[in-house]
Amino acid sequence: MKTLLAATLLFVGMNLWAEPVSTLSPDGQIAVGFDVLDGRPTYNVTYKGRQVIAPSRLGIDLDLGPDLIDGFEIVKTSTVSFDQTWQPVWGENKNIRNHYNELLVEMRQPSTNRLMNLRFRVYDDGMGFRYEFPEQGPGFVYFVIKQEKSEFAMTGDHTAWWIAGDYDTQEYNYTESRLSQIRSLLPGSIDGNVSQTPFSPTGVQTSLQLKTDDGVYINLHEAALVDYSAMHLNLNDSTMVFESWLTPDAQGNAVHMQAPAVTPWRTAIITDDACRTLASNLILNLNEPCAYGDTSWIKPVKYIGVWWEMITGKSQWSYTADVPSIKLETIDYTKVKPHGQHGATTENVRRYIDFAAKHGFDQVLVEGWNIGWEDWIGKSKDKVFDFVTPYPDFDLDGLNEYARSKGVRLMMHHETSGSIRNYERHMEKAYAFMEKYGYNAVKSGYVGNMIPRGEHHYGQWMNDHYLHAVKEAAKHRIMVNAHEATRPTGLCRTYPNLIGNESARGTEYEANAGLNVNHTTILPFTRLQGGPMDFTPGIFEMDMSKLNPGNTAVVRSTIPRQLALYVTMYSPLQMAADLPEHYEQHMDAFQFIKDVAVDWDESRYLEAEPGRYIVVARKAKGSDDWFVGCTSGEQGHKSTLSLDFLEPGRKYKATIYADAPDADYRTNPKAYTISTKKVTSKTRLRMAAAPGGGYAIAITPLDI
Amino acid sequence: MKTLLAATLLFVGMNLWAEPVSTLSPDGQIAVGFDVLDGRPTYNVTYKGRQVIAPSRLGIDLDLGPDLIDGFEIVKTSTVSFDQTWQPVWGENKNIRNHYNELLVEMRQPSTNRLMNLRFRVYDDGMGFRYEFPEQGPGFVYFVIKQEKSEFAMTGDHTAWWIAGDYDTQEYNYTESRLSQIRSLLPGSIDGNVSQTPFSPTGVQTSLQLKTDDGVYINLHEAALVDYSAMHLNLNDSTMVFESWLTPDAQGNAVHMQAPAVTPWRTAIITDDACRTLASNLILNLNEPCAYGDTSWIKPVKYIGVWWEMITGKSQWSYTADVPSIKLETIDYTKVKPHGQHGATTENVRRYIDFAAKHGFDQVLVEGWNIGWEDWIGKSKDKVFDFVTPYPDFDLDGLNEYARSKGVRLMMHHETSGSIRNYERHMEKAYAFMEKYGYNAVKSGYVGNMIPRGEHHYGQWMNDHYLHAVKEAAKHRIMVNAHEATRPTGLCRTYPNLIGNESARGTEYEANAGLNVNHTTILPFTRLQGGPMDFTPGIFEMDMSKLNPGNTAVVRSTIPRQLALYVTMYSPLQMAADLPEHYEQHMDAFQFIKDVAVDWDESRYLEAEPGRYIVVARKAKGSDDWFVGCTSGEQGHKSTLSLDFLEPGRKYKATIYADAPDADYRTNPKAYTISTKKVTSKTRLRMAAAPGGGYAIAITPLDI
Repeated sequence: MKTLLAATLLFVGMNLWAEPVSTLSPDGQIAVGFDVLDGRPTYNVTYKGRQVIAPSRLGIDLDLGPDLIDGFEIVKTSTVSFDQTWQPVWGENKNIRNHYNELLVEMRQPSTNRLMNLRFRVYDDGMGFRYEFPEQGPGFVYFVIKQEKSEFAMTGDHTAWWIAGDYDTQEYNYTESRLSQIRSLLPGSIDGNVSQTPFSPTGVQTSLQLKTDDGVYINLHEAALVDYSAMHLNLNDSTMVFESWLTPDAQGNAVHMQAPAVTPWRTAIITDDACRTLASNLILNLNEPCAYGDTSWIKPVKYIGVWWEMITGKSQWSYTADVPSIKLETIDYTKVKPHGQHGATTENVRRYIDFAAKHGFDQVLVEGWNIGWEDWIGKSKDKVFDFVTPYPDFDLDGLNEYARSKGVRLMMHHETSGSIRNYERHMEKAYAFMEKYGYNAVKSGYVGNMIPRGEHHYGQWMNDHYLHAVKEAAKHRIMVNAHEATRPTGLCRTYPNLIGNESARGTEYEANAGLNVNHTTILPFTRLQGGPMDFTPGIFEMDMSKLNPGNTAVVRSTIPRQLALYVTMYSPLQMAADLPEHYEQHMDAFQFIKDVAVDWDESRYLEAEPGRYIVVARKAKGSDDWFVGCTSGEQGHKSTLSLDFLEPGRKYKATIYADAPDADYRTNPKAYTISTKKVTSKTRLRMAAAPGGGYAIAITPLDI
Repeated sequence: MKTLLAATLLFVGMNLWAEPVSTLSPDGQIAVGFDVLDGRPTYNVTYKGRQVIAPSRLGIDLDLGPDLIDGFEIVKTSTVSFDQTWQPVWGENKNIRNHYNELLVEMRQPSTNRLMNLRFRVYDDGMGFRYEFPEQGPGFVYFVIKQEKSEFAMTGDHTAWWIAGDYDTQEYNYTESRLSQIRSLLPGSIDGNVSQTPFSPTGVQTSLQLKTDDGVYINLHEAALVDYSAMHLNLNDSTMVFESWLTPDAQGNAVHMQAPAVTPWRTAIITDDACRTLASNLILNLNEPCAYGDTSWIKPVKYIGVWWEMITGKSQWSYTADVPSIKLETIDYTKVKPHGQHGATTENVRRYIDFAAKHGFDQVLVEGWNIGWEDWIGKSKDKVFDFVTPYPDFDLDGLNEYARSKGVRLMMHHETSGSIRNYERHMEKAYAFMEKYGYNAVKSGYVGNMIPRGEHHYGQWMNDHYLHAVKEAAKHRIMVNAHEATRPTGLCRTYPNLIGNESARGTEYEANAGLNVNHTTILPFTRLQGGPMDFTPGIFEMDMSKLNPGNTAVVRSTIPRQLALYVTMYSPLQMAADLPEHYEQHMDAFQFIKDVAVDWDESRYLEAEPGRYIVVARKAKGSDDWFVGCTSGEQGHKSTLSLDFLEPGRKYKATIYADAPDADYRTNPKAYTISTKKVTSKTRLRMAAAPGGGYAIAITPLDI
């Protein structure tokens, strides 16, 4: 990454007295105050003169010995200003400005002689802080965090868009409620998942979106989650104080630390404009710069895949039903009877390759290509996959050769079934195998309970694994899209080959338990704050029984909204998830998916309200094309869009993919209209999204 | 492995009725009876008409659903005879006869429709049985064993040589007591260790040596411990019934199973002659044949090492005391101040190489050569070693080149500090590194509590790891000597590059907490039943303060006993553990260590009583040389040795290394005599071992 502007480091001041200190955001609108009250570190945050985080205590419970809770005194405070603009390898914008004022509070616990610092960074759109444990001699090096006790004291019974705290899954629908309603609504918010571990009647996950009655949007999350366990928030619903709740390890501890060390940043995006919340780069800015020298091999990807047919039950990942269980070292698949429903057959994959090549997709994901799918799930099976051996009906060499001849790549799939030791044992060979065959992207999966048993998806152990996989993949110039991994916290800035994650309830649920209709109006506020999601939009056939007579699910979305998601759900990795034959029935609408960019020079959030609607316009990378997307909830959404983001004086053609007047996700999800219109920066478009609907607009200059 | 005699498989009979069945050993002296009593599988064992294992129940507790305890019925029984002689890659004997009668009991639990078999093999010197879970359709594939409930009902209050049951260490001194005394003596038997987890007031480890009042020796252990957790024995000291007690995993379960599957063999060596117990090959015979095609690269090793000087505190593994903790990714050792006590310096290692070359040793172990030793122990440190980076004062290239020029190899050292994920992540590179530099043997170590945290040294997880390491090493033609790993169970037959293990209290304790004086008269009965031990004998300087003024320990052994251990403690891997300068003070005695073989064509146990003495004669591999060793306990030992194992009619020279008349481990441990004598097969030698003493004899034909 080149730095556009040299970083500005301005030494502002230093305070040697143990008195309350405070720091303002660059625009002066956000103030973070800090004090040690009765020996307890305490901070608060105001926004435009109003308190948004009331005095909140900070501290850490250790498993042994005196805690890092009280008895502190301030040794020194210092402040610094920082202003730098940097360029991500891929992203919503070409340039990102990292502009903050920093307050470092150095503290000492005289009874133990331990040192602990707090570092606050205050931005115009929020703030972050972390604990730091400086090197301080042999007396305090290794310690075990039983629980972090960071408070986020809310000032009222805010509205929240939340999912239940869980150590193993984030794949829940969001509930919109008052904080005071979480306790009563939480049990009903939890539906089944292969691996789930809720922990508290008022525990919720981050990123958590809140809104005060006077219109302030507060988003609580974390940034740069490295060598630490993921944080949940546990609500005291008498006081409306959230407290950090770290994911425990197999022994019930949270984190093993070695000083010098820092925690992840605890973040609060604070705005009075929902669009600004969506546009915030605070999480990325709190991560470290890119760790790689050469990033030329990291490229956004638009792909299709042999996947939705398995999700819907039209075909299977597995090859046979002939054997009660599989042992990879002894099974001979050529001796068993195929059940005939295997999706990843040579013939079927060729069909997808043909479709991808014809319509300009970069890659074809193939799930179920490798042996072991007969008993991969829910068995706590250690040696579940080897990641290199294809089923007999999958011609690995031939298909890769065929794809290459058509200018398409196959995308690798590594489902781990949560068996991490097994994956790590095979990882080097599996990545080398990918290099050999020309795969440069892997979708990895972590379905089910972890092995090592007792560890959780979001604990320190697993967080180390996910990052290990990304770093090892980088050595092979491989991009990673990890499903079921810990929700992202901006690490894609440092490791941009982490090109996607799932870590939330994605489109796959439309084929079974369902997504709430307003789900896609919430995810950009919550899950997407930390990084892109492989949401896999683009479903055109809403009736699952058309694919699998036994499947009664229906997708709760109109087709235009499915198109809009390529714009509203920012990701450098975008799938067209439906089957080629369904796209072939709607080639006019499919054109948008073919045209839409996956990397951007600029993004403008135009309208947004969590749970209601999001409208965003994005300018394609290195192009003058713009794409606009709108997703709406139950109520639909009406917009009068100003196209003032277009270059003044230029003329453009807008192709508008809109819900038909009678469209409705319940009754008429496929009713869409496509129209074209000449537009300029002065154009105002009146647009309407149906209930569960949306719209998508492709805007191209007419003068080139 | 070639088979000397074709296997004899004789179909003896089949019983289709659910009645008591029994099978005899080939010589008819041991009988195993089996019945299902009130639905519970039950066996018993008699020896020469006397019951040695009273009716004992067999069954398995599962974590979920109906247990495999009762409600069984016999479906079928069948018997087979087997007689085969095979050749180990290395061993105490050139040929090993595997001769048994087998009883297979096929059972069904009608309430669940599950199938469970028991397979018994009855040898002239004992018996083994295992549980088998045949493939039986999808209803019973994956299951979790909470605890195995195999009983071994003793018929009286026998004498036992035991160490406390523990999930994490076997490094205890043995206690000799009646079974009824275990409860009262167990707490006092446990001294400190970095990682220890006792579990029951009457829990003991296998291999457990017992003796009845009427002179029957019973040894309880297990064979072929693969993909299962190690078994301890928990005594009901009212009934004198031992019950299996498996090492739990981090969640408190014992084993995750996938049918078809078998348990390890539960073994009882039963003789009325302690020498026959020592000579038994029952454990090896119950293991699978060699898994490797080419074994030419597996060679016994005699070695010295930069090790005892660290154990005694004369020098250090670490390089600096200048930093409170080490992070491998950032530490720059060239910038820190060395503490000057580092053992693995280029200069010091060259001295050891010179000594090894001069005296014909194969290899030089160097511990502390690689970075990270400053804070490696007891910290639960994940990224503790990288296994490839030397300290700045260790010239890796130069030393390997120097060793090669002298015809000596360096021996690799991989201490894992129990951080298993870290080791497995580095394993492939570490083994490839060894290949590159010409190392063909690694001493690995597992000191401290495990990472993944909550797992134990002897659980299924770790047992899988140890075997994984051995198999991966084989791919690089590397031999493994794993310390602190699970006690061996004969797996060296199948994987003969597992050339050694520690898994008991070894010589290192002589430099600190001490070994009981009779320790070496017990280990061959117990620890060595499953495979060789890297006991590291050969200490000549018994006063540790001579090495390190602050160390007050004294070795409880005479020098002749130290020599004898090379014969009595069978191992294809033998270290001369003391410092070169100590050997140089006693070059006449050292000659025995130079001469003694490390691989054998034949072994004859001449006299033995656990806790008292062991005398063994061995014929060197491919040679007519014999070596005799005697180790004794507190009482010393007098022998009149018949040399009738020598070839009749031939004349030999015997070089006799004996305790001097005034030798005593307490007062005069270094008093030895060396004499030579012409001997034949008719010679009878009167030999005396001092308290804590022994003798060693080298016998060479005079006619060649």
